[in-house]
Amino acid sequence: MAVTVVGSIAFDAVKTPFGERERMLGGAAVHFALAASFFDDVRVVGPVGEDFGEAELEVLRRRGVDVSDIEHVPGGETFFWAGEYGWDLNSRETLETRLGVFEHFEPKLSEAARSSEVLFLANIQPDVQRAVREQCTGARFAALDSMNLWIDIARDSLLATIATVDCLVLNNEELRQLTSMPNTLRAAREVISWGPPGPSVIIAKLGEYGAAMITAEGFFALPAFPLEDVVDPTGAGDTFAGGFMGFIASHAGEELDEPLLRRAMAYGTALASFNVEEFGTERVARLTAPEISGRVAALASVTQFADAPVALRG
Amino acid sequence: MAVTVVGSIAFDAVKTPFGERERMLGGAAVHFALAASFFDDVRVVGPVGEDFGEAELEVLRRRGVDVSDIEHVPGGETFFWAGEYGWDLNSRETLETRLGVFEHFEPKLSEAARSSEVLFLANIQPDVQRAVREQCTGARFAALDSMNLWIDIARDSLLATIATVDCLVLNNEELRQLTSMPNTLRAAREVISWGPPGPSVIIAKLGEYGAAMITAEGFFALPAFPLEDVVDPTGAGDTFAGGFMGFIASHAGEELDEPLLRRAMAYGTALASFNVEEFGTERVARLTAPEISGRVAALASVTQFADAPVALRG
Repeated sequence: MAVTVVGSIAFDAVKTPFGERERMLGGAAVHFALAASFFDDVRVVGPVGEDFGEAELEVLRRRGVDVSDIEHVPGGETFFWAGEYGWDLNSRETLETRLGVFEHFEPKLSEAARSSEVLFLANIQPDVQRAVREQCTGARFAALDSMNLWIDIARDSLLATIATVDCLVLNNEELRQLTSMPNTLRAAREVISWGPPGPSVIIAKLGEYGAAMITAEGFFALPAFPLEDVVDPTGAGDTFAGGFMGFIASHAGEELDEPLLRRAMAYGTALASFNVEEFGTERVARLTAPEISGRVAALASVTQFADAPVALRG
Repeated sequence: MAVTVVGSIAFDAVKTPFGERERMLGGAAVHFALAASFFDDVRVVGPVGEDFGEAELEVLRRRGVDVSDIEHVPGGETFFWAGEYGWDLNSRETLETRLGVFEHFEPKLSEAARSSEVLFLANIQPDVQRAVREQCTGARFAALDSMNLWIDIARDSLLATIATVDCLVLNNEELRQLTSMPNTLRAAREVISWGPPGPSVIIAKLGEYGAAMITAEGFFALPAFPLEDVVDPTGAGDTFAGGFMGFIASHAGEELDEPLLRRAMAYGTALASFNVEEFGTERVARLTAPEISGRVAALASVTQFADAPVALRG
């Protein structure tokens, strides 16, 4: 199997209470691709400007990511985002966004990218996501992420795009905003009820509290892996998605049932926990397979309890 | 074994998007006692006014709670709290607080209350909590809850009181505020490092995201039990504490190790999930043992995943 991801390829300027970077490789598609690369073949689709060079491409290539669908726009500037996080990393302010080459991006996917069995539409304008989804006729499992901006200004397009995917990945608050429902479980079931066609798996990203997965009948939640030092949360959600979708791609021969999806959640959670330990892609870029396996095992141990009969009064 | 709880016994006026109650039985000690009553003998310590009658006492008595340490203050008014919750129940505004009989409360515990092996100091002024702790010479496991107000205006007293207990129960944000540390895990370990004497078990209450338990070496987290309808979160934290401490009291003969504490967390989480389904004490007051056991089993199933070897690239 193979995974195609479309989304931002960026330079980020990030300031957290624990340090800052003035210009580093970032973007949803980059974070996703690095995480997914531990599981399967990954192709990145998205535009970059003339300021995007070999050093940046090399970070992806070293992890075996296929960069031949990255479009180099002559005279263009790569997407740029600058943000600053509050003291406990739970709030962040966007200081600057320059769309650059993303402003007029019209995705043209190669045959190889179109035929990937797994597709992730990272957070970009929903019309563009849908254009990619329509080209990817080979995709058997597609997911999308979005954000409050598109819920506000492009709701109809977003709803049309959601109807084309199997899995919706959203922050908790965005899921509530999308459905006008104050309860996460109810909001997720509402989205499922809009289909078919549409997603049967909803991932609610809960920030520092981890992530929950809701299906028509099921519910599963994992806390974030406990860390004493979180340095930069940027890209954690996309790294989670990369681990989650990569795991699914690498188990394509098996039935996509609840136990498999739960294991995918665990790998996504493990990958995300590495991402936040350092700035940008720094930690995941040098991650090793044994580190991932070790963290998944540790994650299992922090969420398990052994129930046993108890004599209750009542 | 037996459990003594000291804390507010109150009338609450609560408005949520799903309804309101103008005056209902509430208070931390009441919520705690009802939950703990499923596990062991419970004694409630605290003052009430002349407006507190047989109907209110009967709610506790029907669950077997010993109310003989409730002090009836002639001419006094029972503690009153009024609050309103925002649309998704994650924010709340206190509209009115009348301390009433709590203003001049000097706890005088009976011999039976003093000799309970398990003690919970619900959120009240830390000098009062410490006075109770000092009387309870029989307590082998004591825990306390507090709030941002006491961290702000009575920090030294609170620190002195924390040093007298085995377990600290706080909201996530309060734990960070108490330690000036932005990271929950680090904040909890900081509190542990202040002792001994002091708590070796820290419970971080995470609101709708559940709760985490941190020890010197351990970490355990449980999501809140997934519910489509949450009506009133008031008292959820105290109900959790009642289930947690009640479970510990009823297993007094066993070693208080990590597996036992984890099971206690599961029972606390299950109890709290019933509490929020209706207003005030309404749901827990008519709860049954099989309902609790069923929910703990369901909670186990929503947090478990089966790890298995995966071929990773890296």
